[in-house]
Amino acid sequence: MPLLFHKMVIAGVGLLGASIALAARRCGIVAEIIGYGRGVESLSLASERRMIDDYFIDAERFPAGTDLLMVATPVQAIVPTVRSFLPRLEPGCIVTDVGSVKLRIVRQMEKLFAGKHPFVGAHPIAGSEQWGPQHANADLFIDHRCILTPSDNTDAQAVEKISCFWRNLGAKVESMEPKVHDRLLAMVSHLPHVAAYALVNTLSKAEVDGIDLKRYCAGGFKDITRIASSRPELWRDICLANREAVASSLAKYIHQLNQLKSWITKGEAQRLELEFARANEVRRQIG
Amino acid sequence: MPLLFHKMVIAGVGLLGASIALAARRCGIVAEIIGYGRGVESLSLASERRMIDDYFIDAERFPAGTDLLMVATPVQAIVPTVRSFLPRLEPGCIVTDVGSVKLRIVRQMEKLFAGKHPFVGAHPIAGSEQWGPQHANADLFIDHRCILTPSDNTDAQAVEKISCFWRNLGAKVESMEPKVHDRLLAMVSHLPHVAAYALVNTLSKAEVDGIDLKRYCAGGFKDITRIASSRPELWRDICLANREAVASSLAKYIHQLNQLKSWITKGEAQRLELEFARANEVRRQIG
Repeated sequence: MPLLFHKMVIAGVGLLGASIALAARRCGIVAEIIGYGRGVESLSLASERRMIDDYFIDAERFPAGTDLLMVATPVQAIVPTVRSFLPRLEPGCIVTDVGSVKLRIVRQMEKLFAGKHPFVGAHPIAGSEQWGPQHANADLFIDHRCILTPSDNTDAQAVEKISCFWRNLGAKVESMEPKVHDRLLAMVSHLPHVAAYALVNTLSKAEVDGIDLKRYCAGGFKDITRIASSRPELWRDICLANREAVASSLAKYIHQLNQLKSWITKGEAQRLELEFARANEVRRQIG
Repeated sequence: MPLLFHKMVIAGVGLLGASIALAARRCGIVAEIIGYGRGVESLSLASERRMIDDYFIDAERFPAGTDLLMVATPVQAIVPTVRSFLPRLEPGCIVTDVGSVKLRIVRQMEKLFAGKHPFVGAHPIAGSEQWGPQHANADLFIDHRCILTPSDNTDAQAVEKISCFWRNLGAKVESMEPKVHDRLLAMVSHLPHVAAYALVNTLSKAEVDGIDLKRYCAGGFKDITRIASSRPELWRDICLANREAVASSLAKYIHQLNQLKSWITKGEAQRLELEFARANEVRRQIG
């Protein structure tokens, strides 16, 4: 595989960042990989395991010759991180990210760069409830989608290079408007997380005859709430960065629940069965 | 193991009924097992596989000498099924069930029997999204809870025999008031099912730029909605038989979701994180 980039800085060497490092290294599309982060712990672990060639923790030491800046920090840190590198970014360095929310980031980044650097928003839909470079996996992106969200202003050549980067990591690359991406993800990912958190808290606040309800949670409850094990601060940030779309999905969900509640209260057996059967059928199609 | 019952009729030879047959046979606590059901298909399959010794489909042919009637039909069919056997039930025959809802059933059964037969409500908390005797499993109840819901009127000796029956099948037996059971189960089982059905339907009704949202549902969505694969008519019946407790749990859940929605809209980062972190911690305790 020919080199795509000479020097990649990965800002945020967590599960995603470290997995990108491993996968990019394995397929030989990047010559040198430098890590950046706020805490030295993840960086030195990633360095010891040779996921990265070197690292820095002071933004002032952003390395010369960097032609790809991959921002894999939590969503809220993406723009501030890039801003801190701005004075040292060389012309032609492509900047990209892996944030789960895109519209706010694309807008802020375009404002920040004012056309001086190409920014390609990206969202590889892969991950797990685990975090940290110790769980990194070079296969993490294989056969997973990676959604690019170029705007009308995005440099086409940069989009093609980032697309090529992710295809090399095994991802199925597609493009989408930032706003469409955010509405889509609110529905298939952000809403389910909020729903799971809310379900666990409803249970934890409920009082039934002094019983410890947690002891009675069987497989079904565990399945449905597994994603409530995800990192709270990460999901706080995602919900706030995508607040309009998340709130709108939540409103639809609440409407649906209110309808079911009313049918249950009124004993509307037929409507209830139709609704459950529809969900059953759709769920089957999801596989 | 000494015999507990000479002749057990299992009404409803589905996953639960057939698993009870297999498990009771294996530990030798029942001499003869007779199946009953509306459709001959499950019965003949269970008979071919020697899960049951014989079967009948006409309630009039309820066998003489039956000393245990185990009702393992869907919730709505429990009382009508027992009513159809009533003329042939012999004195001393213990009647029990495996319904996921208890208060309505216990009340109706006590009214039906008027003290003439001992009824012991029971709910083994075990099962799967699969159904039918072909998925029966003699180990299904091992280390699972079985909640008995005797009322003040329930014959103590009958309770002890049913308790012994379930302990022999490997279950951890405990007792609870019918009403407490129903409120507990509404929270840990019925609410999560309704939440999952509603989540799938919210997705299926949402419109995002003409995209087929189902194609973007990854692991998290699949986990949280797996129980939406459960049988619609079964969950319709459970929701209606336990409507007060289910509606009350739903109201609490909707309240929780509305609160989160308001915090997301207003950008209340700290409250949001606290709430997610609380869910995270509780979920960890559930294991």
